[in-house]
Amino acid sequence: MPTIQQQAARNLTKLRETRPLIHNITNFVVMNFTANILLAAGASPVMAHAENEVEEMVGFARALVLNIGTLTDDWVDAMVKAGKKATSLGVPIILDPVGAGATALRTNAAKRILAETKVSVVRGNASEILALAGAQTNTKGVDAADSVGQATDQAIRLATELGVPVAITGPQDLITDGKRVIRVNNGHALMSSITGTGCGATAIIGAFSGVDPDPVSAAATALAYYGLAGQRAAADANGPGSFMIRFLDALYNLPPEELERDARISE
Amino acid sequence: MPTIQQQAARNLTKLRETRPLIHNITNFVVMNFTANILLAAGASPVMAHAENEVEEMVGFARALVLNIGTLTDDWVDAMVKAGKKATSLGVPIILDPVGAGATALRTNAAKRILAETKVSVVRGNASEILALAGAQTNTKGVDAADSVGQATDQAIRLATELGVPVAITGPQDLITDGKRVIRVNNGHALMSSITGTGCGATAIIGAFSGVDPDPVSAAATALAYYGLAGQRAAADANGPGSFMIRFLDALYNLPPEELERDARISE
Amino acid sequence: MPTIQQQAARNLTKLRETRPLIHNITNFVVMNFTANILLAAGASPVMAHAENEVEEMVGFARALVLNIGTLTDDWVDAMVKAGKKATSLGVPIILDPVGAGATALRTNAAKRILAETKVSVVRGNASEILALAGAQTNTKGVDAADSVGQATDQAIRLATELGVPVAITGPQDLITDGKRVIRVNNGHALMSSITGTGCGATAIIGAFSGVDPDPVSAAATALAYYGLAGQRAAADANGPGSFMIRFLDALYNLPPEELERDARISE
Repeated sequence: MPTIQQQAARNLTKLRETRPLIHNITNFVVMNFTANILLAAGASPVMAHAENEVEEMVGFARALVLNIGTLTDDWVDAMVKAGKKATSLGVPIILDPVGAGATALRTNAAKRILAETKVSVVRGNASEILALAGAQTNTKGVDAADSVGQATDQAIRLATELGVPVAITGPQDLITDGKRVIRVNNGHALMSSITGTGCGATAIIGAFSGVDPDPVSAAATALAYYGLAGQRAAADANGPGSFMIRFLDALYNLPPEELERDARISE
Repeated sequence: MPTIQQQAARNLTKLRETRPLIHNITNFVVMNFTANILLAAGASPVMAHAENEVEEMVGFARALVLNIGTLTDDWVDAMVKAGKKATSLGVPIILDPVGAGATALRTNAAKRILAETKVSVVRGNASEILALAGAQTNTKGVDAADSVGQATDQAIRLATELGVPVAITGPQDLITDGKRVIRVNNGHALMSSITGTGCGATAIIGAFSGVDPDPVSAAATALAYYGLAGQRAAADANGPGSFMIRFLDALYNLPPEELERDARISE
Repeated sequence: MPTIQQQAARNLTKLRETRPLIHNITNFVVMNFTANILLAAGASPVMAHAENEVEEMVGFARALVLNIGTLTDDWVDAMVKAGKKATSLGVPIILDPVGAGATALRTNAAKRILAETKVSVVRGNASEILALAGAQTNTKGVDAADSVGQATDQAIRLATELGVPVAITGPQDLITDGKRVIRVNNGHALMSSITGTGCGATAIIGAFSGVDPDPVSAAATALAYYGLAGQRAAADANGPGSFMIRFLDALYNLPPEELERDARISE
């Protein structure tokens, strides 16, 4: 059995070789950046949100990414419809509950998707995961107002209760299915200086889920790859603009053997 | 009492220290760039446009930015709903009347927002401000077809009639509440070579309005900061692409003491 | 009569001198990048999709670009409405049938626009053009799964049947009105590593159609310009991020005389 670091390298290699189609129903702010992140990593992204085509489109996909960052009721309906079809087809669903806890619409939409579809991984910041767990949160928008450390126990409880693996990203990432608890120590502070890095992390978990059937392994290896690309990009960035560009380059260029060597994943 | 240049430096420092949440209901073209501009400046952006969450979201915000760049009727309804709540809470509203004068839908939407909510600052190009003032304009789209000089008298009249400070951006920016007339001479021609710099200026006025209760001072210092970052970015740019990236870096890196020294604000 | 290479240089010069307004009803993923591509080339982009303003807006435009990349029924209605008005005004319409063949909604929307408006040029990848021609395609999303070579005969047949020039982009581009068959050999593999280069090509055909009344010439010269800018950008790019930025710079900087010299257009 490979180590998790070896699995990371294998997943990245397989992603680039097989170019899985990732169907995204995501928010307006990050659509372009998410598509570019997926392309840079080696996946083939498609964005489609019309209720009368999402079932057809998800039939081609190896993963479905649902992100409620700029939701309205009709978009949530489309997400649930796509999610039900994905569930019936066995296509993994990755949920990004952007801003859960900030407004009732967001918290309820995330809970509805979790209830009506079989989510493979839910990925959020600490505040969003606390909100889904029904715990106290300090969130006022879409940026985290709580720490991963504060949210660890709630994440384990949430994963257990829902039967859905939970990933919290932050300075240190946490992935748990309620039994396994994995931490990823890749990443860089500049990643939070641009919009959409969290959403992009969710999409990359989707891409890795398209090549790795174990959701915990897919999420942990995806976040190590993503964070390591962030470290490479930050090395010679002058600020958030140049970081953003170097980040796409780093996702595209990162060799699997460097990922195996520099992934900081601990269980 | 500080000079306006000192106030500019204070506002930037306070913005970076307090990271005010800025709620944007804006157009699809610039959502990503606007969010990155606000993050680079030090603010915390959120985009939310659903009628059933905008009142809740604006309750967390220190400013509300309304931009009609890709409007439809339901989006205008959401803007008015958010704006009424912001008015009742005392949250400053910054209006960007993108394309006012080009179509009746746009002119009417901007006028409706001005009539039904208490706007703190309206920021447009010369053509848009002329259109709102009911004057002749040459606009055919969303780019300015008239000069700031041509629009000055109308801007003063409009500000007086509405009781709303008006900012016109262009090669020279003008800010007036009908009594004070401030000019800002920062900026660079490359700023008009990329989409969304006008919309970004409006958002930055929102961010500065989140830390400076005087709308005229907030607008003038915001535009000096924004224009100076444009000058810094243009210094070694090879074209609009590299300018865009260096602009985000410059917004992030500009020291308050350089803003105080190089802000070209005259009253 | 000028050579097609000379015509390319003339079109680019005229584009930068006259800055034609290009009205886009396009998808959420590429709106920002498309606007920046058009600005870098010298055109003046506007995005407007509300049913109650598209007729007014297209009245100012020199070309209308319709792109179904993230369509819903109401957006298709707006496209048809704008397209009918453009037809009556003689404004050239450029259609990008993104994802035709992948879902019935997309194939039907593209066919409806072709039936109800007078399209000047339809630009797609090989899979999309095969789908419109009613031929077998391997498409599963929005990326090409078929080659230009495989689609050539069908493109000629489709152009003849519809009376609409067809452009297929890929490693080699093909432009045909059923009689003339033109090939363009500019371009670079990195162009397919970022999202929206196909959509941008369609928009640039729109810009060139705003200054060149011959749709076949407009499309061929536009694609040579666009591909040559891609070559220049790729020369020192480190990956898709830096390529994207250098591409905007190259579109902005490319001298007409270099386009005349390096355009690889053969008939």
